Amino acid sequence: MADPWQAAMDHAVAVARKAGEMIREALQSDRKIMCKSSSVDLVTKTDQQVEQFIFASIREKFPTHSFIGEESVAAGEPCLLTENPTWIIDPVDGTTNFVHGFPFIAVSIGFVVKKEPEFGVVYSCVEDKMYTGRKGKGAYCNGLPLQVSDQTNINQCIVNSEMGSNRDPEVVDKIFSTIRKILCIPIHGVRGVGTAAVNMSLVASGAVEAYFEIGIHCWDVAAGAVIVTEAGGVVMDVDGGPFDLMSRRVLVANNKTIATRLVKEIDVFPAKRDDAP
Amino acid sequence: MADPWQAAMDHAVAVARKAGEMIREALQSDRKIMCKSSSVDLVTKTDQQVEQFIFASIREKFPTHSFIGEESVAAGEPCLLTENPTWIIDPVDGTTNFVHGFPFIAVSIGFVVKKEPEFGVVYSCVEDKMYTGRKGKGAYCNGLPLQVSDQTNINQCIVNSEMGSNRDPEVVDKIFSTIRKILCIPIHGVRGVGTAAVNMSLVASGAVEAYFEIGIHCWDVAAGAVIVTEAGGVVMDVDGGPFDLMSRRVLVANNKTIATRLVKEIDVFPAKRDDAP
Repeated sequence: MADPWQAAMDHAVAVARKAGEMIREALQSDRKIMCKSSSVDLVTKTDQQVEQFIFASIREKFPTHSFIGEESVAAGEPCLLTENPTWIIDPVDGTTNFVHGFPFIAVSIGFVVKKEPEFGVVYSCVEDKMYTGRKGKGAYCNGLPLQVSDQTNINQCIVNSEMGSNRDPEVVDKIFSTIRKILCIPIHGVRGVGTAAVNMSLVASGAVEAYFEIGIHCWDVAAGAVIVTEAGGVVMDVDGGPFDLMSRRVLVANNKTIATRLVKEIDVFPAKRDDAP
Repeated sequence: MADPWQAAMDHAVAVARKAGEMIREALQSDRKIMCKSSSVDLVTKTDQQVEQFIFASIREKFPTHSFIGEESVAAGEPCLLTENPTWIIDPVDGTTNFVHGFPFIAVSIGFVVKKEPEFGVVYSCVEDKMYTGRKGKGAYCNGLPLQVSDQTNINQCIVNSEMGSNRDPEVVDKIFSTIRKILCIPIHGVRGVGTAAVNMSLVASGAVEAYFEIGIHCWDVAAGAVIVTEAGGVVMDVDGGPFDLMSRRVLVANNKTIATRLVKEIDVFPAKRDDAP
């Protein structure tokens, strides 16, 4: 049977590549910041222009589909996942990196049908790495198959996370206490490149064993979740339960052994769901 | 007057590029770990082979010069800086990254005459970025001039550091408390790519405003210090005093305003000097 969504995925790859070109061009010229909700939640003209380009380009081909995008939600559009085929998009994942020219900036395009992820595309545009994952058909980076690390000894792992996405003192307490406990298991090291989509892609590629974060949004992880799963990894909630795309919580790892070991160390804090009224 | 050390610098660039090729090849095949002083201080066959190659290649051209290298010091060679022209070398800066295939691994070659840094070469070999700095003649990456960020507002900075190089609980306390205070100034974010040489090169390139660390060694920073200075940045001690190559402490920043602001937040802890008996 022909894959009903292959044409959509091919289009997502083409659109992500073009969006990445726009971002690379903007890096040379236009990096003016506007603040969104706080001084740590940045947005630029580029975020908005790239999202508009991606939405328009996909709508033209798939006019009946639904869309969830970081910038349109910030502008007041609803963030509700229905049974309808839905594109979940972060036009510039790593806006702080973009503003500084720190070389990890991704276009993230996830595609969900009947609330089930079908494919994900993450284009790390400064590195020129196109990560893709298609349900049941594997994950790739620039055409080469991705495979998670086979490490099962937590002491020999690198774990990615982020410290700076929320500056509420109680939240910072929990983030620092968690990262410290994990570092002192001990593991080989903690890293974090400033974008959830690339952090997840690094798990898929085997460069790090795990990534977790509370406070991310569905557009940060919808694509990466498929890529990690198809590279042989696991995607779950930070408490070890099933992954919920709208919960703003994610833990991905190369296998269940590593994931469940990390669950023991994660201090959970509340994050308002993406689909909360 | 002809530059007396230009031939040495040209040779350093050629040797660094060849060493980077060796590392890239080894990434495909040979990443077996041997432990050095602890489970977080890793060394591989590649570290040792690359250092032997670099030393042999430089000794052949400059037989009267002195050498300090991470692996030879680990093997018992002295770590003393004299007036003699001295090459200070980290063959694989970011060994943990190398073991995992995390894409920041650098060859770092510094050159010091009468205890004054003359030039530095940092080859980030997976990215294929050749950073160079020559005293009084500027800093470059792949031939393009480097310039630090012009940011003077600490709230709009990214600061690089590392959390995992020491797991002594008292040291971990100070590292986490420092990073937390800096994050909550607030600044835009904290990053760290797992190699001092690349962290410093990112300051030189303007992607981040500052980098600091206690516990690094002279071979981690000898090259990067010249590159940052020549890109217009400042290099000092973490307490704001003058930089001391053998002190195992470094703070680099795009300018004095940012550096002195960070000094206020850094909790210093003791680190045994590289040249201690």
